[in-house]
Amino acid sequence: MRDVVIIGVGTTKFGELWESSLRDLAVEAALKAIDDAGCDRIDSLWVGCMSCGLFNGQEHLGALVADYLGRTPMPACRVESACASGGMALRAAWMEVACGQSDVVMALGVEKMTDVSGGKATYALAAASDREHEAFHGVTFPGLYALIAVDHMHRYGTTREQLADVSVKNHEHGSHNQYAQYPHKVTREQVMSSTMVADPLRVLDCSPISDGASAVIVAALDESRSLTKNALVKIAAIGAATDSLSLHQRKDLCEFAATIEAGERAFKTAKLSPSDIDVAEVHDCFTISEICVTEALGFFERGRGGPAASDGATRLGGKIPVNTSGGLKSKGHPVGATGIAQVYMLTKQLRGEAGPVQVKNARRALAQNMGGTGSSNVVTILESGS
Amino acid sequence: MRDVVIIGVGTTKFGELWESSLRDLAVEAALKAIDDAGCDRIDSLWVGCMSCGLFNGQEHLGALVADYLGRTPMPACRVESACASGGMALRAAWMEVACGQSDVVMALGVEKMTDVSGGKATYALAAASDREHEAFHGVTFPGLYALIAVDHMHRYGTTREQLADVSVKNHEHGSHNQYAQYPHKVTREQVMSSTMVADPLRVLDCSPISDGASAVIVAALDESRSLTKNALVKIAAIGAATDSLSLHQRKDLCEFAATIEAGERAFKTAKLSPSDIDVAEVHDCFTISEICVTEALGFFERGRGGPAASDGATRLGGKIPVNTSGGLKSKGHPVGATGIAQVYMLTKQLRGEAGPVQVKNARRALAQNMGGTGSSNVVTILESGS
Repeated sequence: MRDVVIIGVGTTKFGELWESSLRDLAVEAALKAIDDAGCDRIDSLWVGCMSCGLFNGQEHLGALVADYLGRTPMPACRVESACASGGMALRAAWMEVACGQSDVVMALGVEKMTDVSGGKATYALAAASDREHEAFHGVTFPGLYALIAVDHMHRYGTTREQLADVSVKNHEHGSHNQYAQYPHKVTREQVMSSTMVADPLRVLDCSPISDGASAVIVAALDESRSLTKNALVKIAAIGAATDSLSLHQRKDLCEFAATIEAGERAFKTAKLSPSDIDVAEVHDCFTISEICVTEALGFFERGRGGPAASDGATRLGGKIPVNTSGGLKSKGHPVGATGIAQVYMLTKQLRGEAGPVQVKNARRALAQNMGGTGSSNVVTILESGS
Repeated sequence: MRDVVIIGVGTTKFGELWESSLRDLAVEAALKAIDDAGCDRIDSLWVGCMSCGLFNGQEHLGALVADYLGRTPMPACRVESACASGGMALRAAWMEVACGQSDVVMALGVEKMTDVSGGKATYALAAASDREHEAFHGVTFPGLYALIAVDHMHRYGTTREQLADVSVKNHEHGSHNQYAQYPHKVTREQVMSSTMVADPLRVLDCSPISDGASAVIVAALDESRSLTKNALVKIAAIGAATDSLSLHQRKDLCEFAATIEAGERAFKTAKLSPSDIDVAEVHDCFTISEICVTEALGFFERGRGGPAASDGATRLGGKIPVNTSGGLKSKGHPVGATGIAQVYMLTKQLRGEAGPVQVKNARRALAQNMGGTGSSNVVTILESGS
């Protein structure tokens, strides 16, 4: 495999972006990444998007974005793994460069979720669960993650306060992010008294419905110096894994087996361990997710994710700063964009361009992006150039 | 890039398969491919499906199929490029093996289209066109391809009879295909007196709404001998390209620029020319498509696709037998499965297992799969092992 580096990144603001269409968002993020790289060449495009069909009545997003970016006849294709679509798009782009088929490839993530109303967003999102065995019977994602939270609380003594502290920490980080949907600090009390969604999860435990797009341009290391003046960020490894779509099929409700597997694959390839990671972006679609995921990745022992959320270990300045972007909770969660937005933030960190949330001397970073109740997982390890 | 070979293929019957669900179809095709390869190992899965969201309310098909195949935590991801989703899935699988990330990868295509009614299938299919600039204004695919047909007839003198002869030839080939949805011969008169859909295209010019799935297992050449006893079929090249989604944005209505580009890329990589190809499967979603595509691929000069359809050049025994499977017209067109089903047929041809439609001494084969009005194209060139 050829070595692959990130040469450019771009993102739109995340939020309820009434004046931007699906294609507008994709093109804006793509142009920003091209501008950041300082390189006008793209050989191929992978677009991560979960459900442009159900949200926008539009499939065939690869060719659509290539067209609106003025890049036909460039090859272009959409990938979809629910909320892990962005991470999977980067994985495909990485393999295309690694195998030598192309030298410069864009991975773009996008979702335009606010054009539907009347429960249609919930219907679309539930397409990431097992429709026949879960959604048809009335359970939606807040309910599924509530089951996970209850199990974790019961088994490990995880508290309602610890869940809230994930949200408090991510909103504090996100308050520095100009692209965040909700760049506002929240208090533990505000989280714990916010509207109940699915006991024990309240609305401030849940990531929002968002519009947005992010883009990353990857290139062959040996070509990259002629393409960009940016500090290079190397893709050290990408590990992917799956688990059952249905939560009831799991042996263990709150152990994310596919996160563990994807993480182990990535660490093995990169020849690194969790303690080597300086900064991470993880998939906090609900507060309980961040707790389970930081355990599954090996940052904390099983059952210790809750205390870690409260004792500052995952805060900026802590042992392993998690979601310095604000995470899905504060930054927003346009589902197809999320995996790419994580890599956007980590690239900024490894280049030393993260401003007020910069992790000092960050050299190794990890992004964990997942779909469903952890059914699809992509773990990406990045390293700053030497 | 490592050399990549096909070690196993499988397909379901295509048709209105009321008793099989989306996941049933996918698993059936996958198991048949595993059985054909005689190899139980799969490292990773790519699922091509156009619109499981709009047809079945289910996204996240990669993990779902991995799960129902009993293969978690294997990495799995869906790719979507409208009706070229199958071809794009094979392209992703090919790159994953070529780059060395995996040794044995399955590319599976599936679509379950008959679970919706009341115009919803037309709505879902129109998601492959530009929804904002085409479908919202009432034009659907038969209408778009009718515009292409009228232009071709006007410019090149292509006749109504020549269009019909594409259908007659493909139904004749398909009459030998046990997996075909409509394995019946039709006459020119039947085609020309069938129900008008969009002038000049009649119902027997149009591929049907279908359910079905097909699967292909690819492996690294240097690993393949320990995996299967089948004759090996090498992937010599896969070329992909895009064009505008909207037909009105084209300079030329009936020149499929992305087919030309994808074909040229594939021929260049394989160091072959159109005259080297012994048998082809092309994307005859409408009769006019086969005429335009056989021109775009260089099998015939521009404007000569119509006469070629009538003079036997594309028939079994002709200069270049096209769609010996029956094509989309007779075999059926479960849109996400089509690109893989083409490769299924060509693998059978190159192994000498094509029975009554066997092309003698077939050594090189070409599959052309496209989405929209030729907006996404994948051209795959296969060679029999030496």
